[in-house]
Amino acid sequence: MLKKILPYLLFTLFITNIGSAQQKDSAQLKHITDEIMLHGHCYQWLGYLSKRIGGRLSGSPQAAAAVEYTRQLMDSMGADTVYLMPCMVPRWIRGKKETAKILSNNSGECGVNICALGGSVATPNGGLTAEVVEVQSFAELKKLGAEGVKGKIVFYNRPFDETLVNTFDAYERNFELRWSGASEAAKYGAVGTILRSLTNTTDNNPHTGVMQYNDSVKTKIPACAISTIGADQLSKLLKNEPKLRFHFEMGCYTMPDVQSYNVIAELKGSEHPEEIVVVGGHLDSWDLAQGSHDDGAGAMQSLEVLRTFKALGIRPKRTLRIIMFMNEENGGRGAKKYAEEAKRKGEKHIAAMESDAGGFSPRGFGLDGTVAQKATIAKWQGLLLPYGLYDFLSTDGGADIEKLKDQGALLLGLEPDSQRYFDIHHSALDTFDRVNKRELELGAASMAMMLYLITEYGVQ
Amino acid sequence: MLKKILPYLLFTLFITNIGSAQQKDSAQLKHITDEIMLHGHCYQWLGYLSKRIGGRLSGSPQAAAAVEYTRQLMDSMGADTVYLMPCMVPRWIRGKKETAKILSNNSGECGVNICALGGSVATPNGGLTAEVVEVQSFAELKKLGAEGVKGKIVFYNRPFDETLVNTFDAYERNFELRWSGASEAAKYGAVGTILRSLTNTTDNNPHTGVMQYNDSVKTKIPACAISTIGADQLSKLLKNEPKLRFHFEMGCYTMPDVQSYNVIAELKGSEHPEEIVVVGGHLDSWDLAQGSHDDGAGAMQSLEVLRTFKALGIRPKRTLRIIMFMNEENGGRGAKKYAEEAKRKGEKHIAAMESDAGGFSPRGFGLDGTVAQKATIAKWQGLLLPYGLYDFLSTDGGADIEKLKDQGALLLGLEPDSQRYFDIHHSALDTFDRVNKRELELGAASMAMMLYLITEYGVQ
Repeated sequence: MLKKILPYLLFTLFITNIGSAQQKDSAQLKHITDEIMLHGHCYQWLGYLSKRIGGRLSGSPQAAAAVEYTRQLMDSMGADTVYLMPCMVPRWIRGKKETAKILSNNSGECGVNICALGGSVATPNGGLTAEVVEVQSFAELKKLGAEGVKGKIVFYNRPFDETLVNTFDAYERNFELRWSGASEAAKYGAVGTILRSLTNTTDNNPHTGVMQYNDSVKTKIPACAISTIGADQLSKLLKNEPKLRFHFEMGCYTMPDVQSYNVIAELKGSEHPEEIVVVGGHLDSWDLAQGSHDDGAGAMQSLEVLRTFKALGIRPKRTLRIIMFMNEENGGRGAKKYAEEAKRKGEKHIAAMESDAGGFSPRGFGLDGTVAQKATIAKWQGLLLPYGLYDFLSTDGGADIEKLKDQGALLLGLEPDSQRYFDIHHSALDTFDRVNKRELELGAASMAMMLYLITEYGVQ
Repeated sequence: MLKKILPYLLFTLFITNIGSAQQKDSAQLKHITDEIMLHGHCYQWLGYLSKRIGGRLSGSPQAAAAVEYTRQLMDSMGADTVYLMPCMVPRWIRGKKETAKILSNNSGECGVNICALGGSVATPNGGLTAEVVEVQSFAELKKLGAEGVKGKIVFYNRPFDETLVNTFDAYERNFELRWSGASEAAKYGAVGTILRSLTNTTDNNPHTGVMQYNDSVKTKIPACAISTIGADQLSKLLKNEPKLRFHFEMGCYTMPDVQSYNVIAELKGSEHPEEIVVVGGHLDSWDLAQGSHDDGAGAMQSLEVLRTFKALGIRPKRTLRIIMFMNEENGGRGAKKYAEEAKRKGEKHIAAMESDAGGFSPRGFGLDGTVAQKATIAKWQGLLLPYGLYDFLSTDGGADIEKLKDQGALLLGLEPDSQRYFDIHHSALDTFDRVNKRELELGAASMAMMLYLITEYGVQ
């Protein structure tokens, strides 16, 4: 008789265990979220970082202040370890406010809003004036060749594709124009470049962002971004007057590298301390605003995870390491340094999570990993759905953690709703008043829940 | 041989047909969304409604302007039929701006921000002054009884439950305090009520909304909402000084009913004209702001559906009827009238959709219907997921369409992300600058896609 009952009993036991494990997890996830929604600090911290410290480009005094602010926060929360990891970062300075105008024979002078792209050289003193040639792509540029481009300013005017539901897809399609636009134009003898700002919105704010000069390019030409209203205006005037001229002046320059830091805190794992799970955002930001969404939000959410684990007395089974990465915006030196150090020390990272897509309402996580790792995450999706997390289809991890993939770590990128991000991204509009408290906190809760499950159960 | 092959052939044919039908639908849904994201008008219309017409409480000149504006829009789009459906609506007027102060013996006078709840009577001229008794629920009120309440002002100070992920759940839990608070307090001899504003945020803006006096209540007492900062302040002072007094003055009053209208347009069904599918939002709004999210957004999204069907040359197989409902905020007379007329004419509504939860990023639809109807919708979920629509679990339809359920219509309520809604709901903050163009348009696209499928295939 026992023989007949035993399998049934075992089966029942198995089911009951799954049931109660799920119930236990479900209750724990609710504790975590309730703690953040009721007692979260990340919104207040982000207010301080945004309004008291402000824009914090790598190497700036504000970046140093952000390092010290977050180090003290980590200390005050009672992490097991808090330390700074030195790294040298580039020091690019915008200098005086940029100016620009369209010089039309038909309609006279007309001022437009521009900003230097990060890493650009300055114009000559007094500015640069030249005819403009408008293109939408490098293919068009190539077709024009030196004959059509030499001595002119290249105007990259490719609008965002508004039909793409995820705005990051539109950004990725246009990104090359910002990154390589100056180098591509210089090949054909252009004297400067104007980029239509990478944004969904139509307004007067130019959006900056990093660019680079290819090693193969002999002459570094100045590169600016123009607001979308300015771009539409310039394009319209060019149609009637292809010979109009554009004048712009920028005083940006690059200083020698400066020492800065990744800021790191750790909760040691109770059962598998050697298995490391990383969570982070980047501490540096562009200089035009407060860097509240990009990426004050992700940095403060990561700190919220630490605070929440401590507040609820959760000792993770695997080591949880919270990182404020330095220099994501114009160099990625912090991420590089962190990955090098991890390799040198022979550390084993099983997972790494990044929040760097704005403090908006969370919708899921991008997953970059093996089928087995993704299967582990898939098992938890039912637990996460009540929090509005349903989207695990993208394979985006994040710029600051991508180098940890070599070690076999599963990369997770928080995916907030993307509709509003590029309205403010890298422009003067990325300010604290555009962050919603509950949206920010729900993002932090999503991260904390997922990190709880990963540190508790591993990911394979 | 044929016998063996035939079932296989048929099966293949079946699969191929499903495949190509799905592909055709998928392509059509993309056409619809692309049209709205590239050429949508709803954002511009909402700008006009918000900024040129503004707050439009039922019976106001602005409500009449909104009727005329949307009627003309419908006409210009070439609907098969456009007509006004008359209905009598209440005419409540706020009158002079409300004032209030806390009168403390310890700390002196302190002004706080209040507004009258919609439907409230005025205070006596010169205002009303009385001691305050704070409660969180009707149960607490009952416990205090006449002895604790008589001659006093009842202060309902129940905060939103921030742990509820969907903010509408928090709203629903507190709603009774606004709706019945004055009547319940009057039972025990209270002279007035103060309601902690129904919102997630902590700021100085009071949030209005409709209340009613039960028929059984003899004395109508004035009811106001206080900002959450004011509520926190009053509550804190009361703890040290339970005998402090509160003074408030309101000049609101109710005029005789006024004739107004539902505004209706129709695209006649090509195959089943007798099967009607409704989509709508409400045209009236509260008077404190521009009614941009509530419910200018839903009304303009509904018009966008009409424009899109016409622009793409989609002739629906079933009749699509677009309705601007009047008087959702303080009476629901338009919805009542519409349902009565439908019944009188013996019309057959197979589905009704409402957008009245803000113009935020869409996440799905609430579905109120039979299992068979929901199963039909479930078949389409794969088609809708790429647009971020994943949530079909709630059973919320909407106030303006609920009366059509008697006819067996499936009710669908657009479910946008709820995190920011109650920050602005019914307060001075519900303005056009808080609407994001892409979020609004994606909501309209979600509605248009779903309505395309329903008019094409039916729902059972």
